[in-house]
Amino acid sequence: MSKEKLTIIKIGGNIIEDDTSLNAFLRIFSNLEGKKILVHGGGKRATQMASRLGIPSKMKAGRRITDAETLEVITMVYGGLVNKNIVAKLQALQSNAIGLSGADANSIQATKRPVKTIDYGFAGDVNKVASNAIDTLIRANFTPVFCGITHDGNGQLLNTNADTIASQLAIGMSKIYETSIYYCFELHGVLRDLKDEGSVIKHINSKAYKTLLEDGIIADGMLPKLENCFEALKSGVSKVHMGNTSMLTKENDNYTTITL
Amino acid sequence: MSKEKLTIIKIGGNIIEDDTSLNAFLRIFSNLEGKKILVHGGGKRATQMASRLGIPSKMKAGRRITDAETLEVITMVYGGLVNKNIVAKLQALQSNAIGLSGADANSIQATKRPVKTIDYGFAGDVNKVASNAIDTLIRANFTPVFCGITHDGNGQLLNTNADTIASQLAIGMSKIYETSIYYCFELHGVLRDLKDEGSVIKHINSKAYKTLLEDGIIADGMLPKLENCFEALKSGVSKVHMGNTSMLTKENDNYTTITL
Repeated sequence: MSKEKLTIIKIGGNIIEDDTSLNAFLRIFSNLEGKKILVHGGGKRATQMASRLGIPSKMKAGRRITDAETLEVITMVYGGLVNKNIVAKLQALQSNAIGLSGADANSIQATKRPVKTIDYGFAGDVNKVASNAIDTLIRANFTPVFCGITHDGNGQLLNTNADTIASQLAIGMSKIYETSIYYCFELHGVLRDLKDEGSVIKHINSKAYKTLLEDGIIADGMLPKLENCFEALKSGVSKVHMGNTSMLTKENDNYTTITL
Repeated sequence: MSKEKLTIIKIGGNIIEDDTSLNAFLRIFSNLEGKKILVHGGGKRATQMASRLGIPSKMKAGRRITDAETLEVITMVYGGLVNKNIVAKLQALQSNAIGLSGADANSIQATKRPVKTIDYGFAGDVNKVASNAIDTLIRANFTPVFCGITHDGNGQLLNTNADTIASQLAIGMSKIYETSIYYCFELHGVLRDLKDEGSVIKHINSKAYKTLLEDGIIADGMLPKLENCFEALKSGVSKVHMGNTSMLTKENDNYTTITL
């Protein structure tokens, strides 16, 4: 018997920062048919709030160094400000959203990242997704809205990258559902030529990926993103899509689909 | 057939501010048998955060005037910082907590308080508790943890006093459960003599209340609290208790119980 479908959509700072973009996206999201989960970032807003509080934001290799007071800011901004506003806006669109951190319903447990050359502080690497607890919420017709916060099971909240939350949720839920991920970002997809928005590579599979790597077409920031995608696909996720939020509408088929 | 019992416990700033008190309370809470809901305040911490952000806290008759930026602070502090930390701590105590604002699961809708002599800003008066949605969570063995935030159903979050959230939840849930409320605060209960902690009035009913009012024993801050209690009792709540958190343990029977 084929599994029911579950769509996991991740939005980042470019959508959250701008109320018009956010409202437009939430309208699309609320109209999507079938079971779904929303995952949101909020890094830019956290950086702004930290700065207003006189807390310097330290980044290493694109990741935030999360000391105790940075964790407080993140908990306030991701778990409170961004999450609750998105939930209220979705409720207005008749989408029965429920906002979650990984601590809520014990949905996502993580381990504090071990200190090697860099001490990332209270940064969490996901080790357990409670797929049944999350499925209980989905089957009760709630739409989970996750922020980038997990917990260690011993009372400690941890900061976890929202892209990772999305892929780990998709992997965990793939035991129950046929899961796909939509990563919404600034570009229309993976581009053959970064200077040409029209050069979207519509389909990438493992073989094509190898060639793209060899040809040096995939590099820099796109490299870890695609590594994560193939990691998720190898762990049970059916499809990963990357592109602009308009890929969620039927009008636009100009985005990248990644399969094994 | 008699209804199943549901206990609603409200804690305020005096417990939340102090990590030792909070941990001690959460240990008691996690050990309480039967179905339960936690409601928390967080006003003092919101005032501190507002002050760090250079936002003056304006109070009128014990209520916060909630302008747009104060609402942001409240959403961050109540919905994020305080709520998620309590949830993570409860998870460590094997209590499957799920943190909620009134927007989550559309659990508590409110109306922005109409402007009469005072403009309270984004302050919400509760008009609908979604008892079935909340019961879905309770029956799935989640323990709801509510903060003092509601929404208007049109995308607007609102600030709602946590005492009111507790009583409105109790009233709403009394359709399904035999509900009782425990208001945990600094004192051991309603005191006959404010200077004597030993003068706890153990039981107050409507008749005793009338006499206490006539004798001037209940006045000032205690007056609106008790008015709210009787309002809740008249609307279906079985019992209201007021006292120190130790009233939740079997060792202490020195607190006030209020019935019709």
